[in-house]
Amino acid sequence: MQTVYVAGVGMTKFGKSSQSLAQLLREAAASALSSSPVQEVDALYVGAMNPEEFTGDSNIASLVAEALELGGVPAIRVETASSAGAAALHAAFQAVASGYYRHVLVLAGEKMTHLSTSAATRILAEVIDKQERLCGATMPALAAMITERYRKRYRLSHSRLEQILCRIAVKNHLNGSYNPHAQFQQPISEETYLSSKLVSTPLRLYDCAPITDGAAAIILTSEQTDIAITGIGHGTGSLGLAERDSFTSFHATQIAASRAYQMAGVSPSEIDFAEVHDAFTPFEIICTEDLGFFAPGKGGQAVEEGKTGLEGSLPINPSGGLKSRGHPVGATGAAQVAEAVWRLRGNAKTKSKDQPKRALCQSTGGLGSNNLVTILERSDKPLSIQSRQKAPSSPPVRQRRAKQPTDEAAPSDEGHIETFTILYVTPDGFLPPLALALIRDRQGRLIMAQGEDITHLEIGREVYLRKVGDHYLFTVKSHLRKVREALNKLLTRGRLLPTGEKMAPSKKEKL
Amino acid sequence: MQTVYVAGVGMTKFGKSSQSLAQLLREAAASALSSSPVQEVDALYVGAMNPEEFTGDSNIASLVAEALELGGVPAIRVETASSAGAAALHAAFQAVASGYYRHVLVLAGEKMTHLSTSAATRILAEVIDKQERLCGATMPALAAMITERYRKRYRLSHSRLEQILCRIAVKNHLNGSYNPHAQFQQPISEETYLSSKLVSTPLRLYDCAPITDGAAAIILTSEQTDIAITGIGHGTGSLGLAERDSFTSFHATQIAASRAYQMAGVSPSEIDFAEVHDAFTPFEIICTEDLGFFAPGKGGQAVEEGKTGLEGSLPINPSGGLKSRGHPVGATGAAQVAEAVWRLRGNAKTKSKDQPKRALCQSTGGLGSNNLVTILERSDKPLSIQSRQKAPSSPPVRQRRAKQPTDEAAPSDEGHIETFTILYVTPDGFLPPLALALIRDRQGRLIMAQGEDITHLEIGREVYLRKVGDHYLFTVKSHLRKVREALNKLLTRGRLLPTGEKMAPSKKEKL
Repeated sequence: MQTVYVAGVGMTKFGKSSQSLAQLLREAAASALSSSPVQEVDALYVGAMNPEEFTGDSNIASLVAEALELGGVPAIRVETASSAGAAALHAAFQAVASGYYRHVLVLAGEKMTHLSTSAATRILAEVIDKQERLCGATMPALAAMITERYRKRYRLSHSRLEQILCRIAVKNHLNGSYNPHAQFQQPISEETYLSSKLVSTPLRLYDCAPITDGAAAIILTSEQTDIAITGIGHGTGSLGLAERDSFTSFHATQIAASRAYQMAGVSPSEIDFAEVHDAFTPFEIICTEDLGFFAPGKGGQAVEEGKTGLEGSLPINPSGGLKSRGHPVGATGAAQVAEAVWRLRGNAKTKSKDQPKRALCQSTGGLGSNNLVTILERSDKPLSIQSRQKAPSSPPVRQRRAKQPTDEAAPSDEGHIETFTILYVTPDGFLPPLALALIRDRQGRLIMAQGEDITHLEIGREVYLRKVGDHYLFTVKSHLRKVREALNKLLTRGRLLPTGEKMAPSKKEKL
Repeated sequence: MQTVYVAGVGMTKFGKSSQSLAQLLREAAASALSSSPVQEVDALYVGAMNPEEFTGDSNIASLVAEALELGGVPAIRVETASSAGAAALHAAFQAVASGYYRHVLVLAGEKMTHLSTSAATRILAEVIDKQERLCGATMPALAAMITERYRKRYRLSHSRLEQILCRIAVKNHLNGSYNPHAQFQQPISEETYLSSKLVSTPLRLYDCAPITDGAAAIILTSEQTDIAITGIGHGTGSLGLAERDSFTSFHATQIAASRAYQMAGVSPSEIDFAEVHDAFTPFEIICTEDLGFFAPGKGGQAVEEGKTGLEGSLPINPSGGLKSRGHPVGATGAAQVAEAVWRLRGNAKTKSKDQPKRALCQSTGGLGSNNLVTILERSDKPLSIQSRQKAPSSPPVRQRRAKQPTDEAAPSDEGHIETFTILYVTPDGFLPPLALALIRDRQGRLIMAQGEDITHLEIGREVYLRKVGDHYLFTVKSHLRKVREALNKLLTRGRLLPTGEKMAPSKKEKL
């Protein structure tokens, strides 16, 4: 298997953004390219959880390839609920490991904050079991039930559990305060945590990751760089809580971790720091146990002893985690890897005591039903790509699309028909028959427009064009001319005008 | 790169089905496994275009892995609009080619017929450019505009174009009449075609693939079988028609084909038959030109000369194509490959004159914006897997989930709390505070239920359970007991009952 390296990583600021999903992804891609010796890619892997319902964007892989002007490059979208970013990375990893592609761009993002909390919560809850949703269960509710069970199983008092969860929230907000990409860049006090409202007992607002917009990018390459991906692993588990053997661990993480450690040839004790999926603070504890960092039931104690802090023996979520960096669901799995790469390279704003050599990222899909683990290692090799020759099998797909001549200018008010149709089976809100044509305006720009009339349609016909609301209308010129001629005839016959005198074309004709 | 082989393929009957998407996928998987020497897989790749909006299924990869009882196997969903099935196959191909997995299951499906035509058309139209949708454009409208342009460019008269499209529809329905999986298994006459209603000029109803439910499955393996995948290629193009250089070809298909031919080391003339994406009859012509089978503008003539018929020199869509087999969007790209494998193995109901050796499948995402090409070859080796030993790196993830003890029986009306929460931020339609608990009933079955009351919740507490509508309600027993004791006290004090006599538990208590 071909070794796979990281050439560059990038990220938008996480938080509330006015940008579209495609714009966020483009910004993340530009950020990754700015630090990467690889500037052209053979393929694009997009991770997104549910752009269909969050923003009404379907066919997102093609849409993003076009927005990035990648000129025909193969593009797929990968989805595994909230671990989609990590799953896109793993699919891209396999494509490079196979030798089929040399350089690929992984882009992952989600746009969520434009929706109300209840609308976003409804879409997020679609990843859990249907029967459980019917009872009113949400992601926080199920996370809370897992937490209560954990508390009981490991005989933690209510106040000790609260103390542990509070320490995780305070730690992750402190870590996030050093992270320029984090949604929340302010430390919080214990009092702030303890006075925050209950979302679902025993979880408070500060136990839950926020709703966030953001995107992250990773460029993978088969040519040696300073960072290698040495282990990947992936596992699934039941959707429903009622289908599980254990309520205090995630089988999917255990499967993924076992495979990733085996592939990398390392044990949990050889990991220097980890980014884990703390969508809820108790999940950080469970993750560190499932990953083998601490014995089952001992994750909380490790937090209390400061082992998982920035200065601890095994920093967990030094970036601030989902809790503080934010959680644009599809982006998170890729963002963790970007953060880990920065830290391995010594580019992170806060450093651990020693320069770390090996990082682990763990991403969770749904309620722990689709989880992935990625292990990265610093190789102490320079970042620059050794050889710039292209492999003979590299695909002939990297030409950029010719931009339209006047992409930014408004279309002119005249043009001609490039092609057309009359639609008899129309979508809701449009009455048949509906004339549609692709018009090329005087500046050479193509515009899709609705016809005011279904007659006289022919390729090449001259038309007038005008904008009405959010779309364009066209009128065939010859049609107007015929109307004018007929009118002239009538007028002549009726002797309303002297014989031979024709009505002059007026400004009005252009509507 | 590890050579990738096909171990088994399967498919449901395409058409209108009362089964859920998960059930359709399970049936397709069972069908593929029934003919496959590989019975256990390392990973699952699911192709589906938009189950979020078609059926409200999110997190589909985990859902399907669980429905198949694959016991924790890695599962991802791949999406590239209507070519999702082919894209899932290609992602799976790369995973096997890399050596990371040995055996993988590709499952692709869509469930669409339960929706009205206008609702399905709206979801399907989300894959096209937003500005073009605002004008009222649909997939058939844009396909029609491409067709009109093609007619004009290659100087076909209206009647000749109609004749060619009619021949394609008649040919594909005839081919489909031999296919037991096809949605339409009746030949159609020219008169039927010519009298069918106009959908969008010049396209008639019989030019358009139907709305369909269905699923297909492919098992890939790194161990030699009788069929190898020798070439894969993938390309993208603009979403919008207004962004394109050409309206009479699909650049994405040309890129994909060029890469696949290069990888397989073959030319178009060495292909024995092809399954292409005839979502609209004119697209079959354009595909055969983009694939290099016929010169630009000559695809129609090839149809007229009978070259693309079952007995022709290059049968196109011998299965009946999307037109007759049906088009459950996400399933189609995988279904084409299943059909091709059957034909290469000589298992198809209609045979070509010679036993074919090499097949090509072409799949289109959106309006030609995300297209894939797959080349398959018969190797004349036996189907049986050479060696059954497991590779040392094969993942430890194939144990089946322990079934719940009484999965089919109704839950009993008593049980105890396994875990619980009180939810304060509830989804729409539920008033806070909402008690939720996971109850284990007397038969050992787990049930998510809503509490009638938020007090006395504790893990281990005994409860009564009853079904109300589509979900369960629970009441803590001790709570009832306390009420009863208080009542007994009152009754005793008020001397309504003789001292010492307690109210007996009644049937009513169980609600």
